[in-house]
Amino acid sequence: MSEPAARPSSAGISTDPAHVAPLPRRRPSLRSLGLAPGKLARLRRLLYAHGPGGGTLLVLPIDQGLEHGPVDFFANPDSLDPRYQYELAREGRFSAIALHIGLAEKYFHEYAGDVPLILKLNGKTAIPPDNQAFSPLTGTVEDAVRLGADAVGYTVYVGSPAQDRDFRQLVDVRQDADRFGLPLIVWAYPRGEAIAKKGGREGLYAIDYAARVALELGADVVKVNYPVPSEKDAESPAPYNSLHLSSEAAFRKVVESAGRALVLVSGGEKVPDAELLAKVRASMDAGATGIIFGRNMWQRPREEALRLTRELHAIFREYAQPP
Amino acid sequence: MSEPAARPSSAGISTDPAHVAPLPRRRPSLRSLGLAPGKLARLRRLLYAHGPGGGTLLVLPIDQGLEHGPVDFFANPDSLDPRYQYELAREGRFSAIALHIGLAEKYFHEYAGDVPLILKLNGKTAIPPDNQAFSPLTGTVEDAVRLGADAVGYTVYVGSPAQDRDFRQLVDVRQDADRFGLPLIVWAYPRGEAIAKKGGREGLYAIDYAARVALELGADVVKVNYPVPSEKDAESPAPYNSLHLSSEAAFRKVVESAGRALVLVSGGEKVPDAELLAKVRASMDAGATGIIFGRNMWQRPREEALRLTRELHAIFREYAQPP
Amino acid sequence: MSEPAARPSSAGISTDPAHVAPLPRRRPSLRSLGLAPGKLARLRRLLYAHGPGGGTLLVLPIDQGLEHGPVDFFANPDSLDPRYQYELAREGRFSAIALHIGLAEKYFHEYAGDVPLILKLNGKTAIPPDNQAFSPLTGTVEDAVRLGADAVGYTVYVGSPAQDRDFRQLVDVRQDADRFGLPLIVWAYPRGEAIAKKGGREGLYAIDYAARVALELGADVVKVNYPVPSEKDAESPAPYNSLHLSSEAAFRKVVESAGRALVLVSGGEKVPDAELLAKVRASMDAGATGIIFGRNMWQRPREEALRLTRELHAIFREYAQPP
Amino acid sequence: MSEPAARPSSAGISTDPAHVAPLPRRRPSLRSLGLAPGKLARLRRLLYAHGPGGGTLLVLPIDQGLEHGPVDFFANPDSLDPRYQYELAREGRFSAIALHIGLAEKYFHEYAGDVPLILKLNGKTAIPPDNQAFSPLTGTVEDAVRLGADAVGYTVYVGSPAQDRDFRQLVDVRQDADRFGLPLIVWAYPRGEAIAKKGGREGLYAIDYAARVALELGADVVKVNYPVPSEKDAESPAPYNSLHLSSEAAFRKVVESAGRALVLVSGGEKVPDAELLAKVRASMDAGATGIIFGRNMWQRPREEALRLTRELHAIFREYAQPP
Amino acid sequence: MSEPAARPSSAGISTDPAHVAPLPRRRPSLRSLGLAPGKLARLRRLLYAHGPGGGTLLVLPIDQGLEHGPVDFFANPDSLDPRYQYELAREGRFSAIALHIGLAEKYFHEYAGDVPLILKLNGKTAIPPDNQAFSPLTGTVEDAVRLGADAVGYTVYVGSPAQDRDFRQLVDVRQDADRFGLPLIVWAYPRGEAIAKKGGREGLYAIDYAARVALELGADVVKVNYPVPSEKDAESPAPYNSLHLSSEAAFRKVVESAGRALVLVSGGEKVPDAELLAKVRASMDAGATGIIFGRNMWQRPREEALRLTRELHAIFREYAQPP
Repeated sequence: MSEPAARPSSAGISTDPAHVAPLPRRRPSLRSLGLAPGKLARLRRLLYAHGPGGGTLLVLPIDQGLEHGPVDFFANPDSLDPRYQYELAREGRFSAIALHIGLAEKYFHEYAGDVPLILKLNGKTAIPPDNQAFSPLTGTVEDAVRLGADAVGYTVYVGSPAQDRDFRQLVDVRQDADRFGLPLIVWAYPRGEAIAKKGGREGLYAIDYAARVALELGADVVKVNYPVPSEKDAESPAPYNSLHLSSEAAFRKVVESAGRALVLVSGGEKVPDAELLAKVRASMDAGATGIIFGRNMWQRPREEALRLTRELHAIFREYAQPP
Repeated sequence: MSEPAARPSSAGISTDPAHVAPLPRRRPSLRSLGLAPGKLARLRRLLYAHGPGGGTLLVLPIDQGLEHGPVDFFANPDSLDPRYQYELAREGRFSAIALHIGLAEKYFHEYAGDVPLILKLNGKTAIPPDNQAFSPLTGTVEDAVRLGADAVGYTVYVGSPAQDRDFRQLVDVRQDADRFGLPLIVWAYPRGEAIAKKGGREGLYAIDYAARVALELGADVVKVNYPVPSEKDAESPAPYNSLHLSSEAAFRKVVESAGRALVLVSGGEKVPDAELLAKVRASMDAGATGIIFGRNMWQRPREEALRLTRELHAIFREYAQPP
Repeated sequence: MSEPAARPSSAGISTDPAHVAPLPRRRPSLRSLGLAPGKLARLRRLLYAHGPGGGTLLVLPIDQGLEHGPVDFFANPDSLDPRYQYELAREGRFSAIALHIGLAEKYFHEYAGDVPLILKLNGKTAIPPDNQAFSPLTGTVEDAVRLGADAVGYTVYVGSPAQDRDFRQLVDVRQDADRFGLPLIVWAYPRGEAIAKKGGREGLYAIDYAARVALELGADVVKVNYPVPSEKDAESPAPYNSLHLSSEAAFRKVVESAGRALVLVSGGEKVPDAELLAKVRASMDAGATGIIFGRNMWQRPREEALRLTRELHAIFREYAQPP
Repeated sequence: MSEPAARPSSAGISTDPAHVAPLPRRRPSLRSLGLAPGKLARLRRLLYAHGPGGGTLLVLPIDQGLEHGPVDFFANPDSLDPRYQYELAREGRFSAIALHIGLAEKYFHEYAGDVPLILKLNGKTAIPPDNQAFSPLTGTVEDAVRLGADAVGYTVYVGSPAQDRDFRQLVDVRQDADRFGLPLIVWAYPRGEAIAKKGGREGLYAIDYAARVALELGADVVKVNYPVPSEKDAESPAPYNSLHLSSEAAFRKVVESAGRALVLVSGGEKVPDAELLAKVRASMDAGATGIIFGRNMWQRPREEALRLTRELHAIFREYAQPP
Repeated sequence: MSEPAARPSSAGISTDPAHVAPLPRRRPSLRSLGLAPGKLARLRRLLYAHGPGGGTLLVLPIDQGLEHGPVDFFANPDSLDPRYQYELAREGRFSAIALHIGLAEKYFHEYAGDVPLILKLNGKTAIPPDNQAFSPLTGTVEDAVRLGADAVGYTVYVGSPAQDRDFRQLVDVRQDADRFGLPLIVWAYPRGEAIAKKGGREGLYAIDYAARVALELGADVVKVNYPVPSEKDAESPAPYNSLHLSSEAAFRKVVESAGRALVLVSGGEKVPDAELLAKVRASMDAGATGIIFGRNMWQRPREEALRLTRELHAIFREYAQPP
């Protein structure tokens, strides 16, 4: 191996935290990923030419209007207007904004050149039940190319009973992304009635598996949630049911499982600043490439959001790596 | 933001009506929408060159023969003959008539040039139950181009258990509309067994979500129903279950959620004139671009319908905006 | 309107038979239909150059071997051999014979030029239950073009829970028919478990709706069954549940609903001659363009069938109209 | 009609055996079938240039490894090796061997030119239940062309609840066969939970219907099973429930229903020689074109199988017809 | 037959072990398989130019991250990093490494030229239940060609209620493999609720059937599990329920059923060395072409794994055959 991976190995099942979730390590370098020129050019634009730079990613998603409905905008009524997020992305110097075709076609033209675009290619509403979760396409890689996007996003519901349709749909997206040289960012979410019986979607088993699936299916970047230890872990398959890792150690394990897929950490619901910044540091320490914070950003008033953004930039600068 | 959107923001959940449903505002200008030339040319034809003009839309739909069956024509037997609606659209100077392929192929040739055509591209009958509502295609964007239509219409059943097929089908329509430069009008209807458990299809939660979904999926124009406050709102997700907005305020909220998708208000079942005209004024005050009245129009005798149309023209003139 | 349609109109629900099912009227002229040249040329061939002529249609269907099985041929064993029907069509001077691909490919070559062909494009067997009725393709419009057919036939099961697949399939057929200029004849049958709860498939509600659906979806000709008043009408949606029309008046209503789709009346099971001829006259009086009699024809011995055909020709001559 | 079909006809339902299952008759001549040149050339090769000739067909199928599993080869362990059947077909001078893509790609090259190939294009295993029987494709007509096959085989499960998918799949196969000029042999099997309630898959109702369906859907040759009268016939639809025909008469009825589709008789499970040869004679007397015997052939030791083949050749010579 | 297959044959059902599972025999030679040039060139590369050579195959699979999740890597934490397996394949001189698109795109570029690649084209997670097992595509043959793979792998779940979709999907893969000249390796796994009722997926009935299905559907190489006799065999269809073969004899039977599809033996869960090596010898004696050991390899520490590999090379040398 060209990069050292010196870790003790063992013939039995190892649940020693030092093995399972080793110490912080460097992020994969873009050079090591064997990327085609188009993907490399666009990832360098996102990781070095925009946003905090230095090989990090700070992404602002605004797909909640589709995924959750306008309900998420009550916390900050300004945020109902997509220009709020676009302007936050521009003034806060985010690496990119991530959204669906409608918000791209109707608003991006005013921000093109200033804010890189990640076009989300599939989604669904929160209205029908989630037990057979599946997100149909809302756009295509060709749409992304036409609009000048720098990457595409795809949500895969790992473990859903509908995962066969999901994987199949992803193949087409992945191939088009290969064909056009667009980086593929996979939102890897454990979901559906089957995972509910194996420790739930917030457990390490679920998130760890989801990260690996994204790697296996060809993600260039994978967005994962931060694992939350809970009593439900006891229902996970062995040895996950007896690992008892902290959130931080669990997340390090997830980053390992993602291999050469760069890792984005999801923000989830809005939490206090100190907690948020601690999570960011822990993520970057674990080898994450960046964060994707939506509600934690745009549910705040503009000035408060911009102040938080500045703090994130400062943190990210500490983790800068050459390309 | 280039246009001011000065509204107080808040870190907590805001249910203050002044925030949730702010005062009337101007409609989005065509110029702000970033439209491709074909869409712009055709929308200007519909909004300025035909009908009441001044950036408004007065649309006459006649898809009820498919959606409800001939049962809707009993109130005015003349209306069973599609020429009744075509002639009403011509003499009443409607911005356009909206109908399915069969009524376009067999009748439009007699009115081409006089009445712009919106080709409805999907539909279904009212015979099977609605719990998994889905409208298959009845025509394509290519049909619309061939027939000289100025826009296409698509019905999406937001929240239906079949919404995955629906969204997927809409992607193809939306892409063809982008390709040929035809404006896409989305009939955004909450429907199906899931929404019935969340306040029902006439509640603000449902209609507000539907409007946003249309925006997210790429609608140029969205047709929505007017929200009707009722006891069922209590079953909506928070904070919708405690908003207690008037119909007018609720509708203003919906227009906000639709963003840069122009809003058409649905007429629904036939109501008395005064009630109807009040609804029109309230809609235009809220920022709607126009109305789409079917049964409220052609279930009336011809002279009565034409008289009502003249009143609508008069109202619309008050809301004229430059392109 | 260019053609007078002088009927009293009413603001309330009209169930006055004189309004609902007005007096006999002329059939739509081919000229009024806005047909493309290919469709016009072929329809003129069917309506004027073959069969009884004068704008009428006398069609011999032989799709029962697929739809019902060989069981229908026991009444007249000769009829098991498709040549029986082909020769009946030739000697009885039918406007066309309607059948599936197999009977076209194996037998039509002996009758080409003498008997125009309507290729049925979808069908099914009677073996599985009918509650989710759907007829898959058995051939395509390209097959019809290759074989020299003058029209294509498609069966749509209006109101079936599978109608979404059905409508979708029909779109492809309709578009190919438009593309190649072949008239589209739609067998519009209410069917499935949903219509069974709304008065059944023989009620006016069902047949009236089916006729309109065919018009809306682009049929050039629609084949409908003759409505049969029964106690089940009471389960139809209002106002159908209280119309109490005679079969004749009900059929006139159906012809109105079909608009500019020419109407073919189905024969159904074999009935006595007097009854049959009365039905033919009533149909033509109501504005039908012709009849499509299968079992009523070829379940009879050859000479008897030919004698009946001559009587039909005589009746049709009374209803001749210029093109 | 160019060929006489002198049979008494009747206005009522005829269940007179002399009408239902008339006396032996000649097979359809290739000339009467209106075949395209490619189909004609290949059918003449199968019916005249190979095998017993004289317009007959002696086909050796070896698709049981897929349809039933290796279980069928226990009776004669040699038969597990596909070369056993290929060599039997060569030395026994069969008209063709019928098998799936794998046995064609891996073995046919050693026998090409000696043994004509019928490529079976769909199949399934016997492991899942048969109530919704459907055989997916295992190959395509293009595969058959590439391999130099002289015909293709397709299994349709008539009456299965999945018959809509089946018919649709068959359309594509049939069209490709038309396009490339390959004869289409349809294995027409009544199957599934619906037919089980109507007399079962071995009754005349089922087999008769299946033969007709093959004709209607475009089969050039149809393979049917020999009807087996049983008590279950009483559950067949009228008048099948009261016909009480012998197996021989029932089979004559089936051949009539198949019309101009040439008929192949299935062998089914292994039976004693005398019984088998009697069945062959009865089949040919009834107008069958040939037989397709699998287990009855290759479950026998080689010399015994070859001896039987010689007897079949002798019988077939008696039924020779000019092309 | 060109190669002698002298085995006594029998007219009755033979369950004599000497017939059912004859003595060891030679593997099929590449020359006998009738392969197209592209397949032949690539198979010779895998069987002779890399790995142990002499016509044998030693394959290292690393698809467990998708199929089982990261859970399989706990036994040897180093193995979580795909470079561990790649380096093991390189240093252990494996014939090829088998994995999915993501591990190919992100890592193969560092080992290209050293380690031949088998691209797995379909897969699934272990999260949803297995009763209707089906693996959707994760990549295509075109991906394999683009990446320079020497073969493709496809998992078919024989007997699953979803096998119709599976077979259909396999046809496309098989045709593309034929078109591009890539050898097709089929992972033939009995799976699903139906096989569970017929002796289970580890019984001879299941595995024997699966091997034959792979041959019938066009596999060039088939991967099978080693049958495990158990009490559940009594639930297999006759005569499997009374064969009482040893594992070794049962496996010989499976190799016979696979015919000219080369056989790879699966390793399954990790077992002690002596047991493993005995299984390898028995497999090669039975006519297998090689083995595919995953967890038995990379769940071991590196040096232990390399030592085992050397032993396998030594064994394989004993079974070398000329091309």
